Amino acid sequence: MSKNHDPQFRAIEGGVCAANGFIATGMHCGIKKSKKDLALIVSQKPATAAAVFTTNRTVAAPLLVDKEQRKRSRTCSAIVVNSGNANACTGTRGIRDAWAMVNETAKALNVSPAHVLVSSTGVIGKPLPMPRVKSGIRAAACKLSRQGHADAAKAIMTTDTFPKEYAVTLKLGGKTIAIGGMAKGSGMIAPRMATVLAFVTTDAAISSSLLQAALTNAVENSFNRITVDGDTSTNDMVVLLANSLAGNDPVRNRDTDFQKFHAALEHVLITLAKMVTRDGEGATKLIEVTVVGARSRRDAVEAARAIASSNLVKTAIHGADANWGRIVAAIGYSGITFKPEKMEISFDHLPILGRNFRVKFSEAEARKALLNEHVNITVDLNLGDESATFWTCDLTREYVTINANYRS
Amino acid sequence: MSKNHDPQFRAIEGGVCAANGFIATGMHCGIKKSKKDLALIVSQKPATAAAVFTTNRTVAAPLLVDKEQRKRSRTCSAIVVNSGNANACTGTRGIRDAWAMVNETAKALNVSPAHVLVSSTGVIGKPLPMPRVKSGIRAAACKLSRQGHADAAKAIMTTDTFPKEYAVTLKLGGKTIAIGGMAKGSGMIAPRMATVLAFVTTDAAISSSLLQAALTNAVENSFNRITVDGDTSTNDMVVLLANSLAGNDPVRNRDTDFQKFHAALEHVLITLAKMVTRDGEGATKLIEVTVVGARSRRDAVEAARAIASSNLVKTAIHGADANWGRIVAAIGYSGITFKPEKMEISFDHLPILGRNFRVKFSEAEARKALLNEHVNITVDLNLGDESATFWTCDLTREYVTINANYRS
Repeated sequence: MSKNHDPQFRAIEGGVCAANGFIATGMHCGIKKSKKDLALIVSQKPATAAAVFTTNRTVAAPLLVDKEQRKRSRTCSAIVVNSGNANACTGTRGIRDAWAMVNETAKALNVSPAHVLVSSTGVIGKPLPMPRVKSGIRAAACKLSRQGHADAAKAIMTTDTFPKEYAVTLKLGGKTIAIGGMAKGSGMIAPRMATVLAFVTTDAAISSSLLQAALTNAVENSFNRITVDGDTSTNDMVVLLANSLAGNDPVRNRDTDFQKFHAALEHVLITLAKMVTRDGEGATKLIEVTVVGARSRRDAVEAARAIASSNLVKTAIHGADANWGRIVAAIGYSGITFKPEKMEISFDHLPILGRNFRVKFSEAEARKALLNEHVNITVDLNLGDESATFWTCDLTREYVTINANYRS
Repeated sequence: MSKNHDPQFRAIEGGVCAANGFIATGMHCGIKKSKKDLALIVSQKPATAAAVFTTNRTVAAPLLVDKEQRKRSRTCSAIVVNSGNANACTGTRGIRDAWAMVNETAKALNVSPAHVLVSSTGVIGKPLPMPRVKSGIRAAACKLSRQGHADAAKAIMTTDTFPKEYAVTLKLGGKTIAIGGMAKGSGMIAPRMATVLAFVTTDAAISSSLLQAALTNAVENSFNRITVDGDTSTNDMVVLLANSLAGNDPVRNRDTDFQKFHAALEHVLITLAKMVTRDGEGATKLIEVTVVGARSRRDAVEAARAIASSNLVKTAIHGADANWGRIVAAIGYSGITFKPEKMEISFDHLPILGRNFRVKFSEAEARKALLNEHVNITVDLNLGDESATFWTCDLTREYVTINANYRS
């Protein structure tokens, strides 16, 4: 991940309020017992919005509403998000409630209802306590500030153990711009989706179509490359707002400015996606799986996905057990064409498996590498030049404990 | 599962030796520390053999050898199986070792090497201790008996907690025939494969092509419908030997005799597959997932597979938590076309979710149903007439404990 140290951009504080003209807040409205459960993100100037949504065919009510909204307008002034209740499988009442959240937010902020997006996360199949949500929205509208990003990041959490925020600044079109965002996990997380919830803001000026192109592509290389439990959520979405307040020459072509913006955006999304993975339910480790030497990009992605999704690999890493056979088995059922005898595997920089199944490593050294909180698995298929990285976490007893009694 | 009580066949003792002319044994040869690790199954008359093998592209050495053997002959006199070592990812040495097991078995039994199949299960990537295996085979050849089925079933176990044997008898072509078998689990178990290891014998007379057709089809409805952890093994195989000693009119057409044989075989395989699932690593429950009212058989299978494979569903059932939202979410990402609002869900005979997401159940009653050792989940898509059943087990802390330190 050399991009982490790309001199073209620099990490800054501020999360979803790092970019000019964005204010936010997070508070407790009464969906959860006592934790924060309602967040507002507001752009002081109507922003261009790009978005991607879950590919799950059981689509939650807020996403159905947002898709309607986006047919009418690509402009967005505010996003309202609740946690503790997914407003999914709630029928026509759920749709009505999602619209009510949009309308209440528009009224409280004095913006057009057409310019409000809504998002929910939490338990599936329960109606929202709307009186509490509505009075919460009215109260939240009075608490918005540039400092509110941290509370907003807390208010979208479900089983997350820490809030996920990240922002960078970079030079673009003669000005300094910022891209900042927040995300939440930490169960029902799997690739082949749009993503978990993530909200990203920027003050860059960029055309609507290029903003969407940058987001779609960056999500493919970040949130679509993580898995916690292989379950794709009904509520996933990433929204990216650009309000142009940085005053840069607007990005209108796929030129070097677009490349710079895209690289910085992808870096922000990868950083947030890794935080979500590290904080996967019950996780104690972040596992980075890189497949190199593949014949095609698709082969590299599918092999990395199979390894990262394997319960057996994830439990072995949890136990710091260098059980490389499970990695070979996972690639074997990934569907790609490869030659097992050509494969090489290393953990961090320690060679584990050589060509022709030559195994020569010290169990003690392998164990030491696997005891790290961040474990790198690299597989070289030795068949070509394509590569891909996937992120996952270890599978632990705690994951089972959390999910055996989630609703109680 | 009305087939369980089909009056056309009756459960009997004897496992893999229930059919006439089959003898077996199981013993300790020294691959494992002290548990049985070597099994022999012998047909006193050369038998017609049908077989299916794993679809994992990382294929273990014994399967490569068996595929060669089957190109030369469909006749089989003996199967030699070791546990404790998968002989997978062992390169040319592994192939040599698998051939050596075939040849040693042929010599010890005085049968043609072309009529011996070999099978292995256990840790991937370690060479077999061949001197021990070879002297084990010689010793096992002297211990074969009609009573040896129970020892054989024990000798193929890895993390299994109980041996899996089952047999039935039925009338066919004027004679009484038997079909009996044994299987092992209990991790790296997932559909889209041939299966786990299972060995089934019958004294029925049946043509080679119909024997293979019956096996392929019955595996599809049994072992290919179970999942423990979503990982497909490198060593899976099912072998079915038919030695014709029952003296029935040979089954040569797809007539009612073939249907009866097929139904009995499928019943034996489903029973063994359910035992494997119930004994999945760390499992405390067998979960039967039935999807009805699907537009196509494929839709029913894919929806049932997604539910049975979901870590979130499996942990919720472990916690006796009626979290039906996770079932709806799993169907949502299964890839099938359906209408969430038309769906109905019940646990055992307790309605949980009605059309239009109408939820009306007592949490206490649902919890009681889910506390059973055998849990039935039925989903009615209300779109058509097709159905399918999948079997899985709950995901527990114990699964993680077992797999975090499997090699140690």
